[in-house]
Amino acid sequence: MSNYDNIKFIRITFPAENVAHVELNRPEKLNAFTTEMFANLGLAFDRLSKDSAVRCIVLSGAGDRAFTSGLDVTASSGGPVFSKDSDDDVARRARNIRHHIDELQYSISALERCEKPVIALCHGISFGAAVDIAVASDIRYCVADSRFSIKEVDIGLAADLGTLTRLPKIGVSYSWAKEAAYSARIFSGEEAGRVGFASRVFKSKGEMVEAALETAKVIAAKSPVAVQGTKALLDFSRDRSVEDGLRYTAVWNAAMLQTEDVGKAMMSGLRKTKPTFEKL
Amino acid sequence: MSNYDNIKFIRITFPAENVAHVELNRPEKLNAFTTEMFANLGLAFDRLSKDSAVRCIVLSGAGDRAFTSGLDVTASSGGPVFSKDSDDDVARRARNIRHHIDELQYSISALERCEKPVIALCHGISFGAAVDIAVASDIRYCVADSRFSIKEVDIGLAADLGTLTRLPKIGVSYSWAKEAAYSARIFSGEEAGRVGFASRVFKSKGEMVEAALETAKVIAAKSPVAVQGTKALLDFSRDRSVEDGLRYTAVWNAAMLQTEDVGKAMMSGLRKTKPTFEKL
Amino acid sequence: MSNYDNIKFIRITFPAENVAHVELNRPEKLNAFTTEMFANLGLAFDRLSKDSAVRCIVLSGAGDRAFTSGLDVTASSGGPVFSKDSDDDVARRARNIRHHIDELQYSISALERCEKPVIALCHGISFGAAVDIAVASDIRYCVADSRFSIKEVDIGLAADLGTLTRLPKIGVSYSWAKEAAYSARIFSGEEAGRVGFASRVFKSKGEMVEAALETAKVIAAKSPVAVQGTKALLDFSRDRSVEDGLRYTAVWNAAMLQTEDVGKAMMSGLRKTKPTFEKL
Amino acid sequence: MSNYDNIKFIRITFPAENVAHVELNRPEKLNAFTTEMFANLGLAFDRLSKDSAVRCIVLSGAGDRAFTSGLDVTASSGGPVFSKDSDDDVARRARNIRHHIDELQYSISALERCEKPVIALCHGISFGAAVDIAVASDIRYCVADSRFSIKEVDIGLAADLGTLTRLPKIGVSYSWAKEAAYSARIFSGEEAGRVGFASRVFKSKGEMVEAALETAKVIAAKSPVAVQGTKALLDFSRDRSVEDGLRYTAVWNAAMLQTEDVGKAMMSGLRKTKPTFEKL
Amino acid sequence: MSNYDNIKFIRITFPAENVAHVELNRPEKLNAFTTEMFANLGLAFDRLSKDSAVRCIVLSGAGDRAFTSGLDVTASSGGPVFSKDSDDDVARRARNIRHHIDELQYSISALERCEKPVIALCHGISFGAAVDIAVASDIRYCVADSRFSIKEVDIGLAADLGTLTRLPKIGVSYSWAKEAAYSARIFSGEEAGRVGFASRVFKSKGEMVEAALETAKVIAAKSPVAVQGTKALLDFSRDRSVEDGLRYTAVWNAAMLQTEDVGKAMMSGLRKTKPTFEKL
Amino acid sequence: MSNYDNIKFIRITFPAENVAHVELNRPEKLNAFTTEMFANLGLAFDRLSKDSAVRCIVLSGAGDRAFTSGLDVTASSGGPVFSKDSDDDVARRARNIRHHIDELQYSISALERCEKPVIALCHGISFGAAVDIAVASDIRYCVADSRFSIKEVDIGLAADLGTLTRLPKIGVSYSWAKEAAYSARIFSGEEAGRVGFASRVFKSKGEMVEAALETAKVIAAKSPVAVQGTKALLDFSRDRSVEDGLRYTAVWNAAMLQTEDVGKAMMSGLRKTKPTFEKL
Repeated sequence: MSNYDNIKFIRITFPAENVAHVELNRPEKLNAFTTEMFANLGLAFDRLSKDSAVRCIVLSGAGDRAFTSGLDVTASSGGPVFSKDSDDDVARRARNIRHHIDELQYSISALERCEKPVIALCHGISFGAAVDIAVASDIRYCVADSRFSIKEVDIGLAADLGTLTRLPKIGVSYSWAKEAAYSARIFSGEEAGRVGFASRVFKSKGEMVEAALETAKVIAAKSPVAVQGTKALLDFSRDRSVEDGLRYTAVWNAAMLQTEDVGKAMMSGLRKTKPTFEKL
Repeated sequence: MSNYDNIKFIRITFPAENVAHVELNRPEKLNAFTTEMFANLGLAFDRLSKDSAVRCIVLSGAGDRAFTSGLDVTASSGGPVFSKDSDDDVARRARNIRHHIDELQYSISALERCEKPVIALCHGISFGAAVDIAVASDIRYCVADSRFSIKEVDIGLAADLGTLTRLPKIGVSYSWAKEAAYSARIFSGEEAGRVGFASRVFKSKGEMVEAALETAKVIAAKSPVAVQGTKALLDFSRDRSVEDGLRYTAVWNAAMLQTEDVGKAMMSGLRKTKPTFEKL
Repeated sequence: MSNYDNIKFIRITFPAENVAHVELNRPEKLNAFTTEMFANLGLAFDRLSKDSAVRCIVLSGAGDRAFTSGLDVTASSGGPVFSKDSDDDVARRARNIRHHIDELQYSISALERCEKPVIALCHGISFGAAVDIAVASDIRYCVADSRFSIKEVDIGLAADLGTLTRLPKIGVSYSWAKEAAYSARIFSGEEAGRVGFASRVFKSKGEMVEAALETAKVIAAKSPVAVQGTKALLDFSRDRSVEDGLRYTAVWNAAMLQTEDVGKAMMSGLRKTKPTFEKL
Repeated sequence: MSNYDNIKFIRITFPAENVAHVELNRPEKLNAFTTEMFANLGLAFDRLSKDSAVRCIVLSGAGDRAFTSGLDVTASSGGPVFSKDSDDDVARRARNIRHHIDELQYSISALERCEKPVIALCHGISFGAAVDIAVASDIRYCVADSRFSIKEVDIGLAADLGTLTRLPKIGVSYSWAKEAAYSARIFSGEEAGRVGFASRVFKSKGEMVEAALETAKVIAAKSPVAVQGTKALLDFSRDRSVEDGLRYTAVWNAAMLQTEDVGKAMMSGLRKTKPTFEKL
Repeated sequence: MSNYDNIKFIRITFPAENVAHVELNRPEKLNAFTTEMFANLGLAFDRLSKDSAVRCIVLSGAGDRAFTSGLDVTASSGGPVFSKDSDDDVARRARNIRHHIDELQYSISALERCEKPVIALCHGISFGAAVDIAVASDIRYCVADSRFSIKEVDIGLAADLGTLTRLPKIGVSYSWAKEAAYSARIFSGEEAGRVGFASRVFKSKGEMVEAALETAKVIAAKSPVAVQGTKALLDFSRDRSVEDGLRYTAVWNAAMLQTEDVGKAMMSGLRKTKPTFEKL
Repeated sequence: MSNYDNIKFIRITFPAENVAHVELNRPEKLNAFTTEMFANLGLAFDRLSKDSAVRCIVLSGAGDRAFTSGLDVTASSGGPVFSKDSDDDVARRARNIRHHIDELQYSISALERCEKPVIALCHGISFGAAVDIAVASDIRYCVADSRFSIKEVDIGLAADLGTLTRLPKIGVSYSWAKEAAYSARIFSGEEAGRVGFASRVFKSKGEMVEAALETAKVIAAKSPVAVQGTKALLDFSRDRSVEDGLRYTAVWNAAMLQTEDVGKAMMSGLRKTKPTFEKL
């Protein structure tokens, strides 16, 4: 497992068979993100995506106070976005900023690109990048008293790491989503659950982590051919017409249904035994 | 009405003027689907779509125990998906499987392709294909204690008859939908109602059928030009940009507004009488 | 402000700094729309969009009884849709109708085209065009006893001014939306809130207007670069793939992040002062 | 082969191994199309698509004078388009016409839907539907003195069976295509070849048929897994982004590359022998 | 016709029945564009689009020396693009520039938006905006010795008024188009004809204008229902899938085929007479 | 420049200011591709894309005999595609193949992803991957006697590295392209030029390289802000509607027009001097 050691600010453990637990691990700074930490988050998920021993991933923030407070503005002050290099040509700065955003987006999109389900667990302060990360995850759980904010408007910018792109597509009231995005107001975990942003709400972080690991174990025990195909097909279809979604699905399953997992799963169903599936 | 006789496993009756009631009719097998039964479902809806005496359709499962338990695995064991014909070339099997999926998708998509509104009524066991069928319908009602499951992951495959394609587009929490699809867990009719998967929840099948027929009668009494146009325009727009949706709508209504139904409907509104609309 | 005087049927006031209040102002006719009134609504919003003194807009109906009862059928009887000019060729009438729909759509789409957030406030009768207008707005509030109806089916036509195009995209249960559209049934403000059509529900119009102005003031105090970018990026992404949404966002912010608003907003955040942003 | 007997107006022969030759066979009427003949053309290609003995199809017109002169207006005079049933409501007529166009489009799209390459051979008069059919084919050959016309404008309508849909996508000068479509002017086979509408031009029908059969034999001797995959991937990509095209291609070949045809083809290439591929 | 008087820099005449001739009319400046002239070009075409007496439009440049030399840089020096207002915030300047580009694009897109065919005639110097305008037209003719250049790279910018958007869609070699756009090199009218950028090439401007008026007269004599439908359907399909193109076409013609123009055109065809079509 | 040393099989030189020359450098094997060589090609172009000293890239094959003969089948025999690991589950093999294709596609797409123009120079044998690479380049030149083949069908598969995805979008006759792809027939450089696949044809490799370097120098002397923007906007628009292309263009240039390159370029144009542009 040394492949996951030494990823700074990101701790990865394996609490159950085929289940990984990723923690944003900078609790003394409320898990605020530096550029390096974004890159490492992407790196971690790109590796987990390829690691055939991993079938479901739980993502949480270390410490009691925050999932993440978002961008570490102090640490980012030397980067292309916030530095005011007076000599710089506007077009060249624009290109640098665009590349910088592309990189951060690429890191966060690693959660969506990851072929295994990702369950994001939000507690405490969950500002800015916390929402970008949550909406790039498959499943969102939260603690009732967690405090969310699409904070970007409060620092003079439109969120650009995925929040505005994915919010219209996660099945929450668009009226609610727009008010939250325009006002940068804080909303609680309880509210997040009520509007469907999160699908389960818990009383404490401990209870949430425990429940998430249970869900992850259930998912990890299923055929990985089936689960990873399900993720790929849902996300493909979300962005395209029903017609294109159906066609892609048929092409995908033309190979996937030839897996021996189907036979194993069906036999186990009939015999009431627990199947074991090969790595994928 | 002999056009609807002898469609094996599918019973069609006409409980009210311009209203058809389709029943999955293999109750002794929990209305499980054979390949032939899928084809017949498609056949029935393609005929109903063309039948100008029909303006709204209610779809339910016969018997007390199930809407449908999904694919009849035993009956399907000789088909291209589950047979392991050892001589077979992988590419040729892939092509056969793809064609088989295309056919089943085509049968289920008959509900969406049908030009009249379809109200799906789920009760009891509603597994696998039950969800594919429900999401291809326009309106979903269910009984509080019905038991739903996106069951496919449990038999080693990603659902490929429409569930994964349409789930991201029916206005339910994507976090909730993904957890249901990855875990194949059972969720109740009560939960289906709470998250918006179903729009109404009832205490019993009897109560549900009665209410659905009331709704169907209301819809069937409206101008068929108006109702069928509404379905066509909603589904077209769902898959495209607002701009394309508006353009298509304008082209559609350029002809449809010339119908005499507009005059009739307005006159009836003023006179508080019940209009009669010609066949469509 | 004479730019907004003499827009017949539309009253525009400025109740707070950078906040405009638009009122449908034909209360003696339940704010029913004539063709001229549609054009004026579009005109008003196109002007507000360009007016750098305006940063958030509240839209409501004058009087106690209605947001709007929809199209004024009497006043429209001489137009291309409802007149039955017997000499007319069907294709030529179709073209005239299409142009007429295009124009009305263009007027209503002014709310979406407007670069500033629009909060629609529905009370009393909110029929037909009321829903077209509400779904073209960013945020929807309503009064609990307001009475909504997608009324078009009742006058023999499919809604063509945006309701059917935008309903599948605002994060409400598609099953609920289709039943409402097919049946033209009345639903209350309370129900609108429960399903997410409206994001807040109030006891009275007065209370709602007050709350909306509070929200508008909050939004108007934020950086206009940030808020208007947020609207543009949310709506662009809604209609496209996540991949396209992210790319467009990066190109957009490549320029926008060079604004001095970022520095001002961050400094104010640190100093706990209230920032002042330049016009946009 | 009795599957292809008795398809009225369509003659099907098998001049070489795995090659079918379809002829429009109503030479005494310049191969003009009745509604029945359109249906039969679609029927023939849908059957050929499923017939594993067929790997490439040549399509030509019987007789010396015409590929086809297009729609047989006399025979169509009782159909929904040209009849003027005075009682009829405009919306109901519109629906009937739309369904009629859908059916004719569906018949002609059978050439694109057909999983095997189709080579259309145009000679003599090639008007109206001739162009719809040609652009729905994969490969177009013609005789130098054949006379083409996008004739529809001359009978008061915009071509609706595929010409206007596919012309912008076949790699000819859009300026040339629009002039041809607006003016309904006649252009020769020589011109068709020069602008890339047809890829080969011949002196006589006999020479053209002979050359097309040679091409068809070459294609039919290749792996059908490879050839049919090539058609599917080209047409999918034509309508979508490069990114989507690449993704679909990868999913497709994930199964197809597991075919034994790859091994056979490579071995034959090394040994300079002629491979034999199993049916598909 | 006073509707077209006093459009500065744009001269409009009516050389034949139902044919308009638009001339860029600033020959002393090589027909270079000021911001006002762009707006007037858009205004002219928006009016021509609605003018039922006009059925085909020819567009050329006044004088012997140029179709247009492109943007009048001198006259534009005070505008938002080229002024360097040092106080200005980058984001605010970006928004102003974006709005300015939107406006110019909107003016040029009037040619594509215009419901009637537009034939662009290029002679002499045809730089920058000349190409933007040509590719937004339906049909392109040119003089052999005209000199084209996608000039924008030479003034430090990527062409943003349509050239780069429409070049990949007009059926010319993409390799050729990219070299022309990257290098800003001059290419002759003869070359433009050879690669399909223009569909006809002439020896002199006089000869070209005469031929274009002949083409315009042919087109203007056809049914306007048919011709304008042809333009609408070609351009809609160009940007969408074949499937969507076919569907839109069927909906369009459901109304348009009910025109009396079909009967008139067919009768004239049989009787060899010249039909007269009503205004559209 | 050590960044480009030691990229096995890929030689990179800098024959002129801001111009890179990439050579496929395995001439003793006809520049056939191993998996490593594909990866290195992608690596090279991803680095060149970020190297601000490079503004235009020429790509050719080392030696006299071939641009490239395509995949080195011998060297690939141990990879996931061609190995027949009998224990392997079909779904797991499918996933491995899909990932392998994704990787190779990603390497070749580096040419399109590269922000600078790429000129591909084809000579001698140009089979299989040669065409994938050529169509992913911006500009294609070739030698008259070079021998092209879309060779994949001859080894039992549909081309999956980009040929079938990009061929429908490069402005060549679709009829010609399909015949070439189905038949795997050899076509000459002369034919490639005639149909627009290549935009220039030369007598010898030497002459071609010389001309390409001239073109590259011309492009490299232009503003890199302008040239790279041109590439980005052309490729974005190719895959989307005209409307989306125009909008993206406006957002892009909102920042890019603020570059000082515009002022420099215009000043140089007026003064007839040669401008010097800063790195990008």
